[in-house]
Amino acid sequence: MQATHEELLIEMKKLTDEKRATSNETILRQHSKDESHHSPVLPEVVVFPNSTEEVSSIVKFANEHKIPVVPFGVGSSLEGHCIPLQGGISINFQNMNQVLEVRPEDFLVKVQPGVTRTQLNQALKKYGLFFPVDPGADATLGGMAATNASGTTSVRYGIMRPQVRDLEVVLADGSIIHTGGLAAKSSSGYHLTGLFVGSEGTLGVFTELTLKVYGIPETTVAGRAVFPSVKEAVDGAVSLLSSGNSLARVELVDEPSIRQVNMHSDTSYPEKPTLFLEFHGNEGGIAQDVAFAEELLSANGSEELIFETDSIKKAKLWEARHHLAYAFKHGFSGREMMLTDVVVPLSELTGAVVYARELIESEGLPGGVLGHVGDGNFHSILMFDKNSEEETKKANRINERIVEYALSKKGSCSGEHGIGIGKMKYLRQEHSDTLPLMKMIKQQFDPNNIMNPGKVLF
Amino acid sequence: MQATHEELLIEMKKLTDEKRATSNETILRQHSKDESHHSPVLPEVVVFPNSTEEVSSIVKFANEHKIPVVPFGVGSSLEGHCIPLQGGISINFQNMNQVLEVRPEDFLVKVQPGVTRTQLNQALKKYGLFFPVDPGADATLGGMAATNASGTTSVRYGIMRPQVRDLEVVLADGSIIHTGGLAAKSSSGYHLTGLFVGSEGTLGVFTELTLKVYGIPETTVAGRAVFPSVKEAVDGAVSLLSSGNSLARVELVDEPSIRQVNMHSDTSYPEKPTLFLEFHGNEGGIAQDVAFAEELLSANGSEELIFETDSIKKAKLWEARHHLAYAFKHGFSGREMMLTDVVVPLSELTGAVVYARELIESEGLPGGVLGHVGDGNFHSILMFDKNSEEETKKANRINERIVEYALSKKGSCSGEHGIGIGKMKYLRQEHSDTLPLMKMIKQQFDPNNIMNPGKVLF
Repeated sequence: MQATHEELLIEMKKLTDEKRATSNETILRQHSKDESHHSPVLPEVVVFPNSTEEVSSIVKFANEHKIPVVPFGVGSSLEGHCIPLQGGISINFQNMNQVLEVRPEDFLVKVQPGVTRTQLNQALKKYGLFFPVDPGADATLGGMAATNASGTTSVRYGIMRPQVRDLEVVLADGSIIHTGGLAAKSSSGYHLTGLFVGSEGTLGVFTELTLKVYGIPETTVAGRAVFPSVKEAVDGAVSLLSSGNSLARVELVDEPSIRQVNMHSDTSYPEKPTLFLEFHGNEGGIAQDVAFAEELLSANGSEELIFETDSIKKAKLWEARHHLAYAFKHGFSGREMMLTDVVVPLSELTGAVVYARELIESEGLPGGVLGHVGDGNFHSILMFDKNSEEETKKANRINERIVEYALSKKGSCSGEHGIGIGKMKYLRQEHSDTLPLMKMIKQQFDPNNIMNPGKVLF
Repeated sequence: MQATHEELLIEMKKLTDEKRATSNETILRQHSKDESHHSPVLPEVVVFPNSTEEVSSIVKFANEHKIPVVPFGVGSSLEGHCIPLQGGISINFQNMNQVLEVRPEDFLVKVQPGVTRTQLNQALKKYGLFFPVDPGADATLGGMAATNASGTTSVRYGIMRPQVRDLEVVLADGSIIHTGGLAAKSSSGYHLTGLFVGSEGTLGVFTELTLKVYGIPETTVAGRAVFPSVKEAVDGAVSLLSSGNSLARVELVDEPSIRQVNMHSDTSYPEKPTLFLEFHGNEGGIAQDVAFAEELLSANGSEELIFETDSIKKAKLWEARHHLAYAFKHGFSGREMMLTDVVVPLSELTGAVVYARELIESEGLPGGVLGHVGDGNFHSILMFDKNSEEETKKANRINERIVEYALSKKGSCSGEHGIGIGKMKYLRQEHSDTLPLMKMIKQQFDPNNIMNPGKVLF
């Protein structure tokens, strides 16, 4: 028997309390969308659990009544992940936002899923520790684990998956499990932690995460290298990576993007393809790395090279880079933003970025290209008019061609944003071999398909 | 209908050729065991495929006739992984030992599963590249992926799982799939590559691996630090790790083990608890790291500190460490060796190692403790008389207590050797939460339980 909207709200209030379950129109609308261009869909009810036990009872009820369940962090996902496509319950984790335990000697931290990245780093600072994964947005750690997020620092510290030591997960039937432990490594059975990371809420709901953290590096140097062309910038980055240089960040920002940065931020960077760089290490090591980088980048055609050690100047540089998407949004307000996200092998990156730039120019949409060059991962920012069928088609066409190019080079259709709604057909293309196995797993873990339905596979 | 031994041999010869399938007693015996203390069991037939297609046809036949299939690399596993517990077919990969492709610009290499670690590094050398995972034994890469091997360098470069970009896998029904691609990262669907790595031949047979490789570091310095006690040695290592020092290796060797090394190798190291260290980086960075390490280790009670930059002396130092197990085997010939393998959180390592040493001493078995201190992973080498029921019990009791201690600290029952036969009951203890999910996956992937039966789960 299906529960009516009213019955569902009453039940959710019973499982939490009068104030922590709602069908208030404004709140439903806040939970109908993420930061992507995908169309909003309202949930039937939004619930704000305080504990794992509450999450468990919510999911158990949902499963018994075959009601969809969609976890919600801060809604910063980029492929429609937290849009409740089939209605049902949106579970907001804002009340489960505690840093539960810091174990400095073990380089571990235990958090609730609603803790955000900057909140965690604030808590870690006094221990001389930090959590490196930095997708730009101040996402929740639950969300970052769900999409296997990465970002600017992955070239050095790796992506989200290997940082996760243990997950507390509520399964579709409401049972609560732990997937790992506190060990730095393990060869004990199938790697379920790694299977849940990146499953985008379709296999279970995360209620607690144990994460690896790192010592704050002794020295950090940030830099900016300006190039006459995108090709020379990417080639410069690739040669730097091949040299074994200990880069912690290497980001490409193309000229239209630099223009937006200058308009939005208080900067006057040369409007040319630019690499934003960062080095982490000890003083002696970095001095040598920076000197070598200068030599190598100049040899690769860099026209201007600036390194900053001052912490305010470093922060400003990275703020400019991180605000890039917002710079486009503000610069083209009224337009919708589509963010492409593919990965190619490093040797194919120059070709792929040049191809993307050509596509954007030939379609005539405002937009730029930026990339986590160290991982062969890049994004195009496409600003299109959602009310214009033609422009929407153009944006979709650019996205499609970029994905097809990446897949033709044995890259991936998603580097860090995930599949969500937007990339389901490309997942089928990329992983036609393993799709039957993924489906088997999904059907076994979630036989009623209540966990974030309409995403990833079904 | 079950195939008889004879029919099976005839069929395997048909699927390969007259010479590449055999029931020769000597060859069967070679495939009846690994390097562990577990009792040998003969396969019915050993087959030497030349290609993925041959592996596929062998597995397909086995599945149709419900015949067990056990992959065999060089037999260096340590928990009975390649013992054909229920007879059937042992698939030896010695003919599939080609380095298929080196992509230096992409930091990738594609190999067949029979390629060994040193063979791969030989092939990579001319590109200035190396593959870092180093379990000591010259294992095959197929085997290393199957057990999620790690070893001395994991503190810096990570364990086997994150190095694997793509696996070609023959599934139980004989179908051939690829699990990944050439991208450095991906958020495209469930992480099946990570699920297959560490599955110990129970979910599929690997026929090709694409692996991440690294630039050979500019400078390498090896060192040895001698301590008055195991406690001070481990504490010294932990404080070094906490300092953010760029260690590439940090290995504990206790005094009975140093004694064996001196007896077996051409060394005269002080017979005291010792840390073997290695630093990788650029000259400037390492100079600073080594100076700081000297300061920190002395402050932690190190009585003797020797650093080597000469490549012959460095090689000698690590050779001594790597031959430790053989040193015990030769020193106590006639006795069987049991190698324990657990991981604990770093903060629990001193206690765990001291506990293990006390256990060994109180049981009165010859043995030593050595550890990959950076990962909180350590081994006890226990030399026992297999014909003495009492000594066998003692060895088993030590192993059991060490595992229970590790699990009580939320560590893992296996750091790198895997579950195999020997750790099945501890897996059930460690992962009681996720065991039903692991079993679901196994039953879906291998409904007839032909893939390395009797290991890991069933």
